[in-house]
Amino acid sequence: MTSTPGCERFPEAELTDDAFLGRRLQVLQPRAGYRAAMDPVLLAAAVPARAGQAVLELGCGAGVASLCLGRRVAGLDLWGLERQPAYVDLARRNAARNGLAVQVLTGDLAALPGPLRRGFDHVMANPPYYAPAAGTPARDGGREAALREETPLADWLAVAARRLHPGGWLTVIQAADRLRDLLAGLPGTMGSVMVLPLAPRAGRAAGRVILQARKGGRAPLRLLAPLILHEGPAHDGDRENHSAVLRGILRDGGALPIPPQG
Amino acid sequence: MTSTPGCERFPEAELTDDAFLGRRLQVLQPRAGYRAAMDPVLLAAAVPARAGQAVLELGCGAGVASLCLGRRVAGLDLWGLERQPAYVDLARRNAARNGLAVQVLTGDLAALPGPLRRGFDHVMANPPYYAPAAGTPARDGGREAALREETPLADWLAVAARRLHPGGWLTVIQAADRLRDLLAGLPGTMGSVMVLPLAPRAGRAAGRVILQARKGGRAPLRLLAPLILHEGPAHDGDRENHSAVLRGILRDGGALPIPPQG
Repeated sequence: MTSTPGCERFPEAELTDDAFLGRRLQVLQPRAGYRAAMDPVLLAAAVPARAGQAVLELGCGAGVASLCLGRRVAGLDLWGLERQPAYVDLARRNAARNGLAVQVLTGDLAALPGPLRRGFDHVMANPPYYAPAAGTPARDGGREAALREETPLADWLAVAARRLHPGGWLTVIQAADRLRDLLAGLPGTMGSVMVLPLAPRAGRAAGRVILQARKGGRAPLRLLAPLILHEGPAHDGDRENHSAVLRGILRDGGALPIPPQG
Repeated sequence: MTSTPGCERFPEAELTDDAFLGRRLQVLQPRAGYRAAMDPVLLAAAVPARAGQAVLELGCGAGVASLCLGRRVAGLDLWGLERQPAYVDLARRNAARNGLAVQVLTGDLAALPGPLRRGFDHVMANPPYYAPAAGTPARDGGREAALREETPLADWLAVAARRLHPGGWLTVIQAADRLRDLLAGLPGTMGSVMVLPLAPRAGRAAGRVILQARKGGRAPLRLLAPLILHEGPAHDGDRENHSAVLRGILRDGGALPIPPQG
């Protein structure tokens, strides 16, 4: 499925040029399609990658998560898979204009392109948040494909697990109400699970979760204290109420402070 | 398995008489066996029971959770199942001496006694926290049976789900590191899942979780803000650093403030 059926590229007039990580990245995105906001940035901030490692992003869209990770950690071997050709085109352009090398391939999880049938140190993903037949469909085809699950969440997790080297890490961001699907769908080869709730305010239920797991890991599951996204009691329409931790990620390009196991 | 093999009662000299809920309950417990502390009290505080409803506690031990619930909510029809006869005896004595009616039956989850093969409005349980072959065995047989899983967690959940009326609620307290087993083992008939992390201090990983689910429920899963058990940055060996919410439960016999489904 392409964003605009039959189109392999977005018309230039449909694109916006958005700053991420305190202007460390400039990213072209479709005005009306799936637009990255905080989630792919937080996803990338949670991946414990080190120079020299290979990273695969499943469903990379316009490439925001891979670009954020590449900006934070130098010397990574970055790969992205995206089903929609118009987003593949954007991701490639976004990599080039930010001076980052990301190999973006067109393809589906169910039939990975040959170059991705190898081992990775990290797999990350921001899969669609809505289960099939839940919620109201988005009007835009590309947004719909990015938001609504066609491939079951368990398939994302299974493909990711298969692509990891032993000891490699899977990092996923997802709607908090999919936590059961995430934990029930995680293959048995994946252990040392960490669940980080992301809560809009202190004392509020989580809106998102970041799930991290290690292939062959045997450490006990950890349910971490929530990361609080906004300070103060209620949303005041002002982006400047981001919590200090969140500012360190969104504005300064830092990593998520995940306490080490043990 | 009995706590002391062959013994159907604890010798009186092995018992302590402990106060719960600000002395609203006095409970006999074995000095060296499984001793209830905070967890069954929190479990009972989370059950949304109303007068006239039927409640089953699976693995009730000396009866602390059922007695706490009976003390908080008048007019309940309380039933308990316990595998170890010496604990069954204690639970019955504890009910009588606190003036609460709890029908405690001896038996195993795998073969429920006839009187429990009926529908309940609530099922609650504090299943063993350690999976088979994990951790170090407790020396005491009764403590071992209460702490270490012989019946898989998924079986507890399946039996509980089968015993619920449509619309009935399951409430379970469990070690946080079993969250994956809890959510993966929850039968598909159970929905409207609520996960409440219990954290020893603000900013710390959860040590326990309370999981609640409704038979036939269709509301999205909610991952709530953690309940913080202790105030201040570190344990000072003083029980008086319990958080205000926890004091309201442990000392005043109140309910857990679980926000209603939105």
